[in-house]
Amino acid sequence: MTQLASMGGDTSADNESAGGGESRAPQPYALGEVPGPLDREQLRLLDQWWRAANYLSVGQIYLMADPLLREPLRPEHVKPRLLGHFGTVPGLNLVYAHVNRLIRERDLEAVFVAGPGHGGPGPNACAWLEGTYTELYSHITRDEEGMRELFRQFSFPGGVPSHCAPETPGSFHEGGELGYALLHAYGAVLDNPDLVAVAVVGDGEAETGPLATSWHCGKFVNPARDGAVLPVLHLNEYKIANPTLLARIPEEELLTLLRGYGYAPRVVAGSDPAAVHQATARAFDECLDEIRAIQAAARAGGAAPERRPWPMVVLRTPKGWTCPPVVDGQQVEGTFRAHQVPLPGARGDDGHRRVLEEWMRSYRPEELFDEQGRPVQELLELNPVGTRRMSASPHANGNVVRDLRLPDWRDYTVEVDPAHRGALLHEATRVLGTWLRDVTRLNPDNFLTFAPDELASNRLQDILEVTGRSWQAEVGEFDVGLDRLGRTVEVLSEHVCQGLLEGYTLTGRHGLFTCYEAFIHIVDAMFNQHAKWLQASAAVEWRHPVPSLNYLLSSHVWRQDHNGFTHQDPGFLDVVLNKDPAVVRIYLPPDANTLLSTYDHCLRSRHYVNVVVAGKQPQQDWLTAEEAALHCARGAGIWDWAGTEGGPGTLPDVVLACAGDVPTLETLAAASILREELPDLAVRVVNVVDLMRLLPETEHPHGLPDREFDTLFTEDRPVVFAFHGYPWLVHRLTYRRRNHAQLHVRGFKEKGTTTTPFDMVMLNDLDRYHLVIDVVDRVPSLGPRAAALRQRMVDARLRARTWTREHGEDAPEVTGWSWPGDAR
Amino acid sequence: MTQLASMGGDTSADNESAGGGESRAPQPYALGEVPGPLDREQLRLLDQWWRAANYLSVGQIYLMADPLLREPLRPEHVKPRLLGHFGTVPGLNLVYAHVNRLIRERDLEAVFVAGPGHGGPGPNACAWLEGTYTELYSHITRDEEGMRELFRQFSFPGGVPSHCAPETPGSFHEGGELGYALLHAYGAVLDNPDLVAVAVVGDGEAETGPLATSWHCGKFVNPARDGAVLPVLHLNEYKIANPTLLARIPEEELLTLLRGYGYAPRVVAGSDPAAVHQATARAFDECLDEIRAIQAAARAGGAAPERRPWPMVVLRTPKGWTCPPVVDGQQVEGTFRAHQVPLPGARGDDGHRRVLEEWMRSYRPEELFDEQGRPVQELLELNPVGTRRMSASPHANGNVVRDLRLPDWRDYTVEVDPAHRGALLHEATRVLGTWLRDVTRLNPDNFLTFAPDELASNRLQDILEVTGRSWQAEVGEFDVGLDRLGRTVEVLSEHVCQGLLEGYTLTGRHGLFTCYEAFIHIVDAMFNQHAKWLQASAAVEWRHPVPSLNYLLSSHVWRQDHNGFTHQDPGFLDVVLNKDPAVVRIYLPPDANTLLSTYDHCLRSRHYVNVVVAGKQPQQDWLTAEEAALHCARGAGIWDWAGTEGGPGTLPDVVLACAGDVPTLETLAAASILREELPDLAVRVVNVVDLMRLLPETEHPHGLPDREFDTLFTEDRPVVFAFHGYPWLVHRLTYRRRNHAQLHVRGFKEKGTTTTPFDMVMLNDLDRYHLVIDVVDRVPSLGPRAAALRQRMVDARLRARTWTREHGEDAPEVTGWSWPGDAR
Repeated sequence: MTQLASMGGDTSADNESAGGGESRAPQPYALGEVPGPLDREQLRLLDQWWRAANYLSVGQIYLMADPLLREPLRPEHVKPRLLGHFGTVPGLNLVYAHVNRLIRERDLEAVFVAGPGHGGPGPNACAWLEGTYTELYSHITRDEEGMRELFRQFSFPGGVPSHCAPETPGSFHEGGELGYALLHAYGAVLDNPDLVAVAVVGDGEAETGPLATSWHCGKFVNPARDGAVLPVLHLNEYKIANPTLLARIPEEELLTLLRGYGYAPRVVAGSDPAAVHQATARAFDECLDEIRAIQAAARAGGAAPERRPWPMVVLRTPKGWTCPPVVDGQQVEGTFRAHQVPLPGARGDDGHRRVLEEWMRSYRPEELFDEQGRPVQELLELNPVGTRRMSASPHANGNVVRDLRLPDWRDYTVEVDPAHRGALLHEATRVLGTWLRDVTRLNPDNFLTFAPDELASNRLQDILEVTGRSWQAEVGEFDVGLDRLGRTVEVLSEHVCQGLLEGYTLTGRHGLFTCYEAFIHIVDAMFNQHAKWLQASAAVEWRHPVPSLNYLLSSHVWRQDHNGFTHQDPGFLDVVLNKDPAVVRIYLPPDANTLLSTYDHCLRSRHYVNVVVAGKQPQQDWLTAEEAALHCARGAGIWDWAGTEGGPGTLPDVVLACAGDVPTLETLAAASILREELPDLAVRVVNVVDLMRLLPETEHPHGLPDREFDTLFTEDRPVVFAFHGYPWLVHRLTYRRRNHAQLHVRGFKEKGTTTTPFDMVMLNDLDRYHLVIDVVDRVPSLGPRAAALRQRMVDARLRARTWTREHGEDAPEVTGWSWPGDAR
Repeated sequence: MTQLASMGGDTSADNESAGGGESRAPQPYALGEVPGPLDREQLRLLDQWWRAANYLSVGQIYLMADPLLREPLRPEHVKPRLLGHFGTVPGLNLVYAHVNRLIRERDLEAVFVAGPGHGGPGPNACAWLEGTYTELYSHITRDEEGMRELFRQFSFPGGVPSHCAPETPGSFHEGGELGYALLHAYGAVLDNPDLVAVAVVGDGEAETGPLATSWHCGKFVNPARDGAVLPVLHLNEYKIANPTLLARIPEEELLTLLRGYGYAPRVVAGSDPAAVHQATARAFDECLDEIRAIQAAARAGGAAPERRPWPMVVLRTPKGWTCPPVVDGQQVEGTFRAHQVPLPGARGDDGHRRVLEEWMRSYRPEELFDEQGRPVQELLELNPVGTRRMSASPHANGNVVRDLRLPDWRDYTVEVDPAHRGALLHEATRVLGTWLRDVTRLNPDNFLTFAPDELASNRLQDILEVTGRSWQAEVGEFDVGLDRLGRTVEVLSEHVCQGLLEGYTLTGRHGLFTCYEAFIHIVDAMFNQHAKWLQASAAVEWRHPVPSLNYLLSSHVWRQDHNGFTHQDPGFLDVVLNKDPAVVRIYLPPDANTLLSTYDHCLRSRHYVNVVVAGKQPQQDWLTAEEAALHCARGAGIWDWAGTEGGPGTLPDVVLACAGDVPTLETLAAASILREELPDLAVRVVNVVDLMRLLPETEHPHGLPDREFDTLFTEDRPVVFAFHGYPWLVHRLTYRRRNHAQLHVRGFKEKGTTTTPFDMVMLNDLDRYHLVIDVVDRVPSLGPRAAALRQRMVDARLRARTWTREHGEDAPEVTGWSWPGDAR
């Protein structure tokens, strides 16, 4: 018999076992007379709406039946697993209710960002009250039966998550991993001049790095062009088991911090509902007035006004406000014990269940819902109308996507003479930049570029010909290119770049994020969460596809020889490939024209994460525009001009495969050596642009059928594959392929040091000479010529290495190599 | 002929081509009479030391010969690739020189953390001046020949990186990826009461998220127990191509921000060397006085004093201070153009080279070095002595490691009756917590635990029996367990946890970081950099191994059913496996006793990153203490008691392999079904604790030789492998193994939704029933019994799924399963 030797609650950290003392339900409260902007009736109604949202939130956490408490709660009415965090919910509902007042009174266009984790019951409840839930999920009707289903499905198998998620009407922000609430809110308001994003920031979340730096984003918001973010720092003092830092510094220190971040904070604090309602209403009114004043000044024309602090609210209310004050003899309301589920024993413990019922009744459901469980009419009248409801916001729900106007990429390609391939060098990203410049120009309110101070370093500076860098702060004497209306955002935080772009694309606009390849790992976790959002939202029928999130990774691993080991990391590809194949794409264009073709494809796509890795250093152009278009459409193909195999129907002796610009260069250089040295060896060169082509078709929509894979890579010939990233990634993609045992991959293997470009490829055995050695070692039929060639290659490597050590740069025989042209 | 169609500098973003106008070298400056704490002679000497460091820094960036400018600079004296960033260097050298004064005058024990990137020439120069460079690298003598070599090796193939690195004497902080300077500094001073870590924070780095939140770390420093960090925010206004945010807000706003972070900032601003020297000396004196006052008050005993703001310095000096003011007609000093290399054409352009020479002469090398190139005696007298030199700090250079006192883990194991395995359930991490409690108790100044508010959630709360949570902020009425001397650090920032633990272990102490598995991706990039540091520092002969960085990942992917998809991500293992096998280890202990044995091993180890994934939910205990010890020593082994194969020499019909606690449970449940249903099927159960055992021995020190691998997994029998992570990771580890084609892996595949534990394993086909189906489908000899069993398994799955959807929890037949005991 299995026996539990050590007790432990399911998710709560400190839930002492039940029965240690009395438990007390909260009492229904009466609204006192508190002066403020709300008259008595407004106050009563607003509080009523708030109580309804709170009631519906508690119901979601606990109940799977008897939603209107028609009979005393029995164990089978209560869910066996109690999930969701009540602690933050009353605050979320309070803010939501009060923003609704602003929307109605000012015809405000607002979206709601719920930062605190697992507070999903709140926004679900609000959406149900507003009717949106029923419009989007017709079986969840706005009556008793629908209420029961709303409750039951919450954090229930097959139901909806405990935090805001794609399933949540009005949410474009996932509440799982903390830190990105402000970033998403700021991303949403860029180029949305009429929009106000109300972002509730939990004081737990506020401790994260991304959140801590994202307060500065106000400095990238132009009050004339963009909307505004209204941050509400919800200071309910506790995380799972600890107080929060920001709640445990003197209030003046906190306000000083927020002022330093560029805000004018207003504090709303208290636990008396009437007083908090009045204070919240006053603070929100003042904040909105101030936002409008800032915007009006900026939009009035004339000289750009001084940057002014943006208003914000500090909301200090008790954790789990309105929940049972004492459970099992311990204070719960206002403490960390209210963070998750205040009555963990509600199913099995009669006392807990009785208190739960009293707690729910303290919201006076009889005033909130009619006999059929419908919200009473006076509640409904508080709801904003149509798409003004935050739960129905087209910005949040993915319904405002406009296509980009894209110039024909072929007009930006570089000339390639098929008889002299590689005769010209271009910086691929710089060529792309000329096209992106015109993409920027043609889409003046629908396309933004983000970079962590790497736009010019990654050679996209031509964009700056048509726009500057977004900047609302001061301008120094020697600053160049700063622009209050700039359409590139540069800030030395990969988190901010990623988060703003996420917020911008999740609300239907387009953009790209260019970053050093190694440092994109900084946002691994954000990428993961965004890919999960895309995957999950694709399954939500009422959501429409949003623009793809596009990366341009440059300064890549093979061109970070000089910056050394810390700057060498191609592992983001591995992270990306772990996510759902339906939403991730990886491209490794080998030259300027293929990069153009690839990016044109990316900017037209929807609902993907597109990862494009391309070099910024001068490198050979291989393909004409037309060839590039075809090659990119294929994703992987044989470069006939580079190989020496016979005509159709014959098979090569060896396949040289490559993916990535530097591996392609080295592979072609190896092919040229083989052509010269072993003219009768039949060599095939295969280039892979679309990495997903390597996967079986069963694993990815771009996967090649086995037959086509075999046609490229043969069924039994040795394949020497020069790869941009870690070599085992290619094995992981191809281990099911017929010819996998013959596949030999060269890639990056954490051997970096301070070196030169060619020295670096030598360190990793990816250089032309070693690729020739790899061929020689794998084609048994070569005979004695092979041994001599092998030795020459070994010598060539030693010579090259010695040269770099002496001269500090690569040997002329390496840098001066050029493709021999069409020898056949 | 290959031809460069598009010009582009090598690394600098905006280096217009040379020749566009005049270039001006800086003039040698005279020190004015500026009143301040330095007398005239002190001022002269300090400035002289600073000039020497600056001269040596410029030399490193540009020269490969003629270090003392004995002849006019010729092209061949100048390196072909000019690397390193001069912009930040004069500030670094200024701070270093002034800290040296404090060290000498106060017998201060200090370490230096250089946050700004690619400023390596500065600390290299200082270490050479101090003699440490020569002590550690005897061929880099403190004379002309050594100076030449110091210059030449900088950012030269086979030489030292452009940023602070393991090769840099006195550095325990890598300068490659930005954001972690303050975290490392704070980690270093914990439990080091006499130490002051001077951390120079670049204003670029200050924009990153990790840096933005790490200002709060002062609230975890106990002035009685810990040392102090003296942050120097170096506001030189520019990044690569942009001004910095903090330099473009009004100074009062910046100071407000820093005060809000909990500091008392002092501003030093200027470009006149004498004035800046005096102001710096005054500010540093005041800061040190204040640090000592805070510490003295805390150490005086009696009531714990109020938290006071920590002093810090804002240093506002020109970018590239003392470099050529104008190059090619454009202002350089004090602008973004001074960020990298001010004279990019110094090798090929005569004008640039002439200005370079004048620039170096402006430091008056004839006053700095004698005829042999040795620093003049009065410079040497400014150096601190012995290990007081920051470049020779034993804290920084890894020479202060003390072993942990570890209680015998066997005293903490749970009882397992081999005749009734799995009869008891334990929360594995909670059992580990009892041992960690005593590790904490026995090592009161040498071991810390870090958690992002997840210590108790991950069931390590027994540690709190012997210590509280480190907390210097205010304490609320209902806060529990806060402790000014607490030895656990909880802050809701994975970056902070990781960074502090890095700083703590890099300076020789021990600790662990416990985190939800999914959210450890937040620090992927920091892990990458730390692994690179460990790898690179292992190759630096004078560095000693430091304690390992230990992770305990719990709330893992298979137990995040209720929190849903956002909390499900086992991909950190993939990230870890990309790094150098010499420094990374991954363990997946299947139960409480194996977790204890594993962690004992981890805390004894040096210079690794140990990743341990273990569950916090009640789960079966399988192995006795002795069995656990042996199994963990083996890393992977056959569990005879779970299999049904014959005696030695026979082979099984099928191998059920597993790695991870939940996969092990499901595998054993599958084995029990097979034993019941197909008693004559010879089943082998193999459990893998040490994931690296799967790799070939050529790829990892823990890798199994092929012969041993084949002994476990057979050469030709089907293997059904239930794996904790993404399934392709096992393929990536084993693709070279003989039996790989027969290996069928089940793991996590991004199919999560809100569900129950068993429902979740079913979603991923990792459940016991599906594992039986996998066996049936792969053992062709089973005949008609197989089809019937298969159908029963399909039905069992449907039943289980239906149950969860109806009841919200797993079916009793699943949760009530127990191991049948020894049937043989």
